[in-house]
Amino acid sequence: MDCIFCKIANGEIPSTTLYEDNDFKVIFDANPGNIGHSLVICKHHYADIFEMPEELTAKGFATAKKIAGAVKKATNCDGVNVIQNNGEAAGQTVFHFHIHVLPRFNNDSVDIKFGGIEAEAEKVTEIVEKIKKNL
Amino acid sequence: MDCIFCKIANGEIPSTTLYEDNDFKVIFDANPGNIGHSLVICKHHYADIFEMPEELTAKGFATAKKIAGAVKKATNCDGVNVIQNNGEAAGQTVFHFHIHVLPRFNNDSVDIKFGGIEAEAEKVTEIVEKIKKNL
Repeated sequence: MDCIFCKIANGEIPSTTLYEDNDFKVIFDANPGNIGHSLVICKHHYADIFEMPEELTAKGFATAKKIAGAVKKATNCDGVNVIQNNGEAAGQTVFHFHIHVLPRFNNDSVDIKFGGIEAEAEKVTEIVEKIKKNL
Repeated sequence: MDCIFCKIANGEIPSTTLYEDNDFKVIFDANPGNIGHSLVICKHHYADIFEMPEELTAKGFATAKKIAGAVKKATNCDGVNVIQNNGEAAGQTVFHFHIHVLPRFNNDSVDIKFGGIEAEAEKVTEIVEKIKKNL
């Protein structure tokens, strides 16, 4: 399969590796939002969080937590976003599971805005029932 | 402590609960980015991912994975963002660990943009060493 993150994970494409174990490799994002912007890349090919096994998802985010702490200390940033995108509509560009650990600085150029949608009460009740049914 | 998410977690403030176990409660965001926008709230008070124990972080994101799948089925959305903010500079507004599960639709009003920073090679090398030292 012609997947750039598979090639990075297996070393076919060289990268600066911040951390590595049997399941994850952590590198810098090639198009960073801020200095220190890291990616926790799964070494096994799963397109997104829906395909990922639960245990591996948990391990990936536990790794992201460790990286977040180290990135904070290393960059002396003011905050950190942990972001994991699924689907083109969500901004996913490489369809291989990865987690962004994005250091944030006051007044940086990162733009993350969501909220303020008015949801009809009837529709919300319907969605609640559907979510519960699908859990 | 006067923490709104502690009060929601312990039931002092009523909420529509999508899912609940000993460690997490899942509700809808009061200011949603899209219909179905859910929050995985830790039942124990930790301000952010830095304070969270590793095991609880893993469990929280495993819960977010389950919710993401159910939200996708329930809303028939085109994508999902899993977002966890730490610090005011990262957009965190309630200082009690929580994870956003945000369904996305093509051409919705959510705005998430990051990337395109030019990082000096020398500075990057310095940060790599600092991250590795802090892991």
